[in-house]
Amino acid sequence: MSKMLWGGRFSKEPSRHVLEYNSRENLALDEQLVPYDVEGSKAHVVMLGECKIMEKEEVAGVLRALVEAEKLWREGKFELKLENEDVHLNVEKFVLAKAGSGAAKMHTARSRNDQVSVDLRMFLRDALNETAEKTIALVNVLVETAGENAEVIMPGYTHTRVAQPVTVGFWLSAHAASLLREVEKLEQAHARANTSPLGACALAGTSWKIDRKLTAELLGFDTVQENALDAIDSRNEFEVEAIGLLASLSAKLGKIAGEIVLFSGSEFGFVELGDEHATGSSIMPQKKNPDCLEIMRARANRIAGNFVAALAIQKETISGYNSDFQETKPMLFESLEIVGSSLELLPEVVKAMKFNEGRMIEVCEENFACATELADLVARKGIPFRKAHEVAGSIVRECVEKKKKLGEVSVKQVKEKTKAVAGVEINVGEGELASALDVSKSVQAHENGPNSNNVKKIIAGLKKQAGEKGKNLEARIEKIGKAKEKLERRVEALL
Amino acid sequence: MSKMLWGGRFSKEPSRHVLEYNSRENLALDEQLVPYDVEGSKAHVVMLGECKIMEKEEVAGVLRALVEAEKLWREGKFELKLENEDVHLNVEKFVLAKAGSGAAKMHTARSRNDQVSVDLRMFLRDALNETAEKTIALVNVLVETAGENAEVIMPGYTHTRVAQPVTVGFWLSAHAASLLREVEKLEQAHARANTSPLGACALAGTSWKIDRKLTAELLGFDTVQENALDAIDSRNEFEVEAIGLLASLSAKLGKIAGEIVLFSGSEFGFVELGDEHATGSSIMPQKKNPDCLEIMRARANRIAGNFVAALAIQKETISGYNSDFQETKPMLFESLEIVGSSLELLPEVVKAMKFNEGRMIEVCEENFACATELADLVARKGIPFRKAHEVAGSIVRECVEKKKKLGEVSVKQVKEKTKAVAGVEINVGEGELASALDVSKSVQAHENGPNSNNVKKIIAGLKKQAGEKGKNLEARIEKIGKAKEKLERRVEALL
Amino acid sequence: MSKMLWGGRFSKEPSRHVLEYNSRENLALDEQLVPYDVEGSKAHVVMLGECKIMEKEEVAGVLRALVEAEKLWREGKFELKLENEDVHLNVEKFVLAKAGSGAAKMHTARSRNDQVSVDLRMFLRDALNETAEKTIALVNVLVETAGENAEVIMPGYTHTRVAQPVTVGFWLSAHAASLLREVEKLEQAHARANTSPLGACALAGTSWKIDRKLTAELLGFDTVQENALDAIDSRNEFEVEAIGLLASLSAKLGKIAGEIVLFSGSEFGFVELGDEHATGSSIMPQKKNPDCLEIMRARANRIAGNFVAALAIQKETISGYNSDFQETKPMLFESLEIVGSSLELLPEVVKAMKFNEGRMIEVCEENFACATELADLVARKGIPFRKAHEVAGSIVRECVEKKKKLGEVSVKQVKEKTKAVAGVEINVGEGELASALDVSKSVQAHENGPNSNNVKKIIAGLKKQAGEKGKNLEARIEKIGKAKEKLERRVEALL
Amino acid sequence: MSKMLWGGRFSKEPSRHVLEYNSRENLALDEQLVPYDVEGSKAHVVMLGECKIMEKEEVAGVLRALVEAEKLWREGKFELKLENEDVHLNVEKFVLAKAGSGAAKMHTARSRNDQVSVDLRMFLRDALNETAEKTIALVNVLVETAGENAEVIMPGYTHTRVAQPVTVGFWLSAHAASLLREVEKLEQAHARANTSPLGACALAGTSWKIDRKLTAELLGFDTVQENALDAIDSRNEFEVEAIGLLASLSAKLGKIAGEIVLFSGSEFGFVELGDEHATGSSIMPQKKNPDCLEIMRARANRIAGNFVAALAIQKETISGYNSDFQETKPMLFESLEIVGSSLELLPEVVKAMKFNEGRMIEVCEENFACATELADLVARKGIPFRKAHEVAGSIVRECVEKKKKLGEVSVKQVKEKTKAVAGVEINVGEGELASALDVSKSVQAHENGPNSNNVKKIIAGLKKQAGEKGKNLEARIEKIGKAKEKLERRVEALL
Repeated sequence: MSKMLWGGRFSKEPSRHVLEYNSRENLALDEQLVPYDVEGSKAHVVMLGECKIMEKEEVAGVLRALVEAEKLWREGKFELKLENEDVHLNVEKFVLAKAGSGAAKMHTARSRNDQVSVDLRMFLRDALNETAEKTIALVNVLVETAGENAEVIMPGYTHTRVAQPVTVGFWLSAHAASLLREVEKLEQAHARANTSPLGACALAGTSWKIDRKLTAELLGFDTVQENALDAIDSRNEFEVEAIGLLASLSAKLGKIAGEIVLFSGSEFGFVELGDEHATGSSIMPQKKNPDCLEIMRARANRIAGNFVAALAIQKETISGYNSDFQETKPMLFESLEIVGSSLELLPEVVKAMKFNEGRMIEVCEENFACATELADLVARKGIPFRKAHEVAGSIVRECVEKKKKLGEVSVKQVKEKTKAVAGVEINVGEGELASALDVSKSVQAHENGPNSNNVKKIIAGLKKQAGEKGKNLEARIEKIGKAKEKLERRVEALL
Repeated sequence: MSKMLWGGRFSKEPSRHVLEYNSRENLALDEQLVPYDVEGSKAHVVMLGECKIMEKEEVAGVLRALVEAEKLWREGKFELKLENEDVHLNVEKFVLAKAGSGAAKMHTARSRNDQVSVDLRMFLRDALNETAEKTIALVNVLVETAGENAEVIMPGYTHTRVAQPVTVGFWLSAHAASLLREVEKLEQAHARANTSPLGACALAGTSWKIDRKLTAELLGFDTVQENALDAIDSRNEFEVEAIGLLASLSAKLGKIAGEIVLFSGSEFGFVELGDEHATGSSIMPQKKNPDCLEIMRARANRIAGNFVAALAIQKETISGYNSDFQETKPMLFESLEIVGSSLELLPEVVKAMKFNEGRMIEVCEENFACATELADLVARKGIPFRKAHEVAGSIVRECVEKKKKLGEVSVKQVKEKTKAVAGVEINVGEGELASALDVSKSVQAHENGPNSNNVKKIIAGLKKQAGEKGKNLEARIEKIGKAKEKLERRVEALL
Repeated sequence: MSKMLWGGRFSKEPSRHVLEYNSRENLALDEQLVPYDVEGSKAHVVMLGECKIMEKEEVAGVLRALVEAEKLWREGKFELKLENEDVHLNVEKFVLAKAGSGAAKMHTARSRNDQVSVDLRMFLRDALNETAEKTIALVNVLVETAGENAEVIMPGYTHTRVAQPVTVGFWLSAHAASLLREVEKLEQAHARANTSPLGACALAGTSWKIDRKLTAELLGFDTVQENALDAIDSRNEFEVEAIGLLASLSAKLGKIAGEIVLFSGSEFGFVELGDEHATGSSIMPQKKNPDCLEIMRARANRIAGNFVAALAIQKETISGYNSDFQETKPMLFESLEIVGSSLELLPEVVKAMKFNEGRMIEVCEENFACATELADLVARKGIPFRKAHEVAGSIVRECVEKKKKLGEVSVKQVKEKTKAVAGVEINVGEGELASALDVSKSVQAHENGPNSNNVKKIIAGLKKQAGEKGKNLEARIEKIGKAKEKLERRVEALL
Repeated sequence: MSKMLWGGRFSKEPSRHVLEYNSRENLALDEQLVPYDVEGSKAHVVMLGECKIMEKEEVAGVLRALVEAEKLWREGKFELKLENEDVHLNVEKFVLAKAGSGAAKMHTARSRNDQVSVDLRMFLRDALNETAEKTIALVNVLVETAGENAEVIMPGYTHTRVAQPVTVGFWLSAHAASLLREVEKLEQAHARANTSPLGACALAGTSWKIDRKLTAELLGFDTVQENALDAIDSRNEFEVEAIGLLASLSAKLGKIAGEIVLFSGSEFGFVELGDEHATGSSIMPQKKNPDCLEIMRARANRIAGNFVAALAIQKETISGYNSDFQETKPMLFESLEIVGSSLELLPEVVKAMKFNEGRMIEVCEENFACATELADLVARKGIPFRKAHEVAGSIVRECVEKKKKLGEVSVKQVKEKTKAVAGVEINVGEGELASALDVSKSVQAHENGPNSNNVKKIIAGLKKQAGEKGKNLEARIEKIGKAKEKLERRVEALL
């Protein structure tokens, strides 16, 4: 006789070799699903009792065993065995051993297909919330650091070439704004995934008269996913969507990391990293390598790789559960772990960074960062912008040739060039020219740009948004928590 | 002197070879952006007039030229020249030629960076709406076909193995439900992207006193994107997000296509494709190949490839505009085109499909699709489900060995097996056994599964949802349309 | 004072948090590199002695400690500590503790950059050889099974539609031929990677007078990689190349797996899997799911994902070592493990497969698989092939309409259709028509196709090729083994 | 009656909509295949004549029409029509119209499956050769520029941090060495793909007595691909392999481009780009943007995306031809075009680059690039390297704190630090300290690194290798050319 719970029609069992191949890392990852599997089973069994499919005593027996399984797991003593394949059959076998014949009814009106789907959605809800929480925390650190450095001049870039002067506050708050959009995506993915597949069974529902709404409610889902086949198919879909969002989020983290790698090198010289965030070389005594940022940059790529792989898995199968789906799980877990740890580290790195404003102003000046201001000044004198651009361009060219800075340009030069290019005499004051070519004044003049009041306004807006996202998150967490408590109370009442 | 509008500081111009390399397909794609570029310029110039940066007459002159450019474009006569690099400079050069010196002011307080960002967002809004529209249309065809075939029996699969009987209505409505989630994602991406970058200029805003809210309003944006650097950076981000959603949507289309390829082959034999959706072989006279579905399946993969490529481009650059961003455009356009044409074709294929219910029932029976019903029947007699599963499993095994169908199993056999496995005598009626083993009755018994009432309920729910999504879409389109009209009226008033 | 071996210039050390982030799974994977790191160090130290950079006694002391480290590792007792970052510093610290001051010289003229590069290339050589070995073994099983089933009829497909009859031997030997090309790629990648980076140091070689040829020879490398910067950069390149080849190989494995999933379902019904390669369902007692093949199909996708990720890592950095490179290692190891275990399982599955020729002939007949033969028969009567194709096509159409098989077509019909379509009277014998429409005879008639003699010839050719590849492999393994022995003898002599 | 050449069994034809969907860009791309299709058909028909399957006159008629088709194509007058689906049926229909009834025999013993496979392999051979040619040309430019700048000091990097001084020659020759490995891969892929699939027909060969060796020889293939099914399946495989190699090659081009983007910015300041390889900004008059290099960097990513997409297409189908395969063609063509144009542009950019050695030496000094030399100097005094590393590290730390350069370190300091760290008195001469800390001398001291003699040796080696690769390439091209000539002569003789 087969020891497999599903062995009825089989003459042979899968060899250990096959079981090992099938599981690979799956069983180890399933460790993390034990509490979700137990919770899902509690709700299912409570419902089976409510629907008179199980006797009260049977229900109590099973719940008792489930409570025990969870306790053992919390103590690190709940062992998952390979011959039981996965978390579901491991828990079921445990309950069977503890709760006797009634336990054999707990799988009524359920399949591993809807079970794993429930487990993973509960896991995913928590994971998305945790990721959102960490992202909000990073946003807060960025915003805070932006506030502290709202007026610290920094070159702004286009094409990796100095474009116009901005400020550290302006730069960091741009990243913060961008990350808040990722939080929004996480919220939306959470809402999409928070529907209950339980009762979908293998793919076709069941002839048992069960109450899908009740289990959905007991587990804190927003709603029941009506079409059972869709409920099963979408296991994979929600995982793939999550991996896609993690790819997008981690690309942003990797981009920030890469930017700091550059900005903290001596060539740029804008940022000094904390010694604790750097490592040395085994051979070159002078090295201070931005190890953790390089790794953050590199690791992000793995999640994009995971996304294409997971999407291919979703796509190349036909409707209904396929074992292929199991293989998106390690990619989801890995992606979450990589993003989570990067989200934890980055705020620490940002807080320890020291900015070298002197060098940043120097780079602005070396690169004629105020040339646009010069063109705008000329344009304000009535010269069409295209002509003014040409005037400023030829002044820059002269500066390059004569190795001068823009600050050394005289009123006379400006007037002469304008005459030569646009054929028009203009009046330019010493003061207004000096203002246009002064990096700090130029920054302030950009009232809808890096101007300090504007940056403060932007920062205030971001704080507000981050606060709202935080409240949304709390509400999501609370809803799940309350359902859990309610289920616990119900379980206790039944014991 | 440089013919380039930006040539002030340059001693040499890019060679034609370099311009061609830089552009590749870019200029050809920019064709599609002309009306958006013109519209953006209209709004910008109206605002410059409002803010007293341009004179009324200058505004009128530029608007007149823009209106002419648009007219020429509609007539297919607006030529984009390589030496003008892109749509922006082509339009600007046209206006310069027509509107004289005032035209040279139209680029005041603007950069190509915010300009391309505006163009692409307006394009993207329309493209996302169009994609949503086509997806809703496909959902409607699926739902309608599901309704017509709500009771047509079909095998339901797990592991590409017959699992339980379902219906064509159940199967198609699962795909419809899944696609509606993609519509939701498109809506959310639309909302995220519908913010105005105009006024962000190169990346740092401007010292001109402009009115960013006014241009946002004139162009139908929901809001202004406050941080100018973020506004520039996110050009790429919104494109990548859209490509990601298209990858997800097209994977679903490809999956459906692949499923129909299989189901329409003689081995499955569930579906007969319309002759007009098949092609023949140059050598084998009997062939009827599902060409277009194979191609749909294959083409979907390109979009996943585009996603990783686009994300890599977003990630490997530093903050601010980079020419790298240009390269996400062809991938966005290609992805939209592939998804759009597949969305158009698939409904046609679905409508022409004929279902072979006889074959589908046969496959159910050959594969013991009612074995779970048998187990459930035994379980209802008080045998725990795990034991009942074993009973049914061993009956299946006997059938396999004796090449019998499940329908041939007798009450006696069921009783004996139950006795042997569970040690218990049970009472089973001829009628209830026959019901359990009858494919159609089993389907009806699954009241939360393929049962016809349930499928009708599901279909009604999907229709309602599709209707709501349709209304949301109309509202989005209307908002954009109204802004456009208003802008047109304003332009007319200024001419 | 820093405990870090490179801590000279640092005021603070990386926190445990940072070290953990940096390492992630790296240290655990480095376990597998210990013997390579020790071997590389042995060769380096022997060379330093030879070049008079280390004293004889110092050399002996270090070698003794290295031998001990290796012994401990074999016994599972060599612990890698996080605070020592990686395998290199762990081994070095061990040697420092054992061998005293002389040990502090072992890192002379070496950097972790060339060290890790050496370790990984030695690992990669072995891994590529092991993969080649397993692939050859799979080829042999395919070829053997092909031989056993050289005449078993099977439908050949195009467009997932029956095309023409072939044989199981023909089908399996096609897969074998294809896999042999992967073995060739592995050989070529081996040759490319088998060059010594040792002595490249950080990236610029060294001012010590070392002997790079000697270490290359001692470690069994074919040659020295001359440009030190290239030697360091290519660490990543060889890993990426290997992952790319593994992606290609595993796509083939996944494709075969997917094909067997289909062919072993009842709808096709060509193949019966061994019970030991299937699993059951927790709910549906009749299920026999091809779990391990589904997983093989799915897992293959991960390697393609790894490839894009690894390539992105290689690309987005500048020349010289970057910590980013560390992140390709887990992807390489994972890819090797997935491919390796799939290569081990697949032959077992193939050997246990049973073919159902009756069903396969039935499917050929149901699908008019001999229609091309009919067209060819008509063409041989002097009718141009295009016309003959049309004749056969219209006969097929009639059969479809009248639900007849091609075998039921009469000589009269063929003549009449030919007359109608081509306007020509032809003579067709009963016998030749029957032969053309007989599946087995048609197979035999394809003398350059599935004809049994041809298949046997193909199989003989594949066996020969596989044998040659096996010999090449042995030669590669032997070369490495001999270098290792020689190094060991030299080490012994120095102790 | 169907107008389709394969329409026999069909009651309806594909609508224009379906044909357009199926083709998309396929027909336009097929333009490039016309000469290959014609050549393949010539060889096939010559062989059919030789094998007495076609009459001499029929052969002549068909060849005449093929020659005409080719001539028209050369004149840009051979139109491919959508209703003829692809290049093959377009050519065949043309021949049918010209050559009368004999033409209807030209498709005997052939299918579009082996035909497209032949066409693509001939195309691919040429394309791989062209890519190899351009890569060798780039290598030559890199090597030449390396030679011209063999002694120009440049900082060498690890972790994007200055590591040790190297030279421009050393840096560029590393890239050249790396690119030569790509040429080797192209050679090997060429050899793998250069086998003839002709005669494989649909997938099962044919019952016609044809001569596969003859067509292989006439078309310049190295050998016949024996297993017909493998011949058909591998169409896709060779395309995927080629795209993979192009991904690898273009990642290297993108990496070089990205490096030059950085090195040519003012922050690094190592390189001045030619004005003709830069563009300006529409708003910022001072900008000199490295447009074409950014685009090269970005475009490379598309090929990696193409690779995963193409591999997915290969994998998700079953054996035999599938229409999915058509979709790898545009990705192959696009990848070739991107790589080809980048390979053409990059040498031009490299040749126009000007190096700023002053700045590069400055960066070396600012970053203590000679610290390893200092450690080595101390180590040469008998201090174990690990200790010496610590000595140098603490000296660097002092320099950082006191904002001094390494060149300002005194003998006294070195001695004191060594005493403090290692507890040992050492003797250090003024001269040897100065030498160690002098960037140029340090470079020269690295005799197996950037030392000028070594770089010259490396360059000589690269030139030799590039020369050999060039000869291999010529031989491949010649072989193809000779076969072509021979076929032409044979055709002429038959006309």
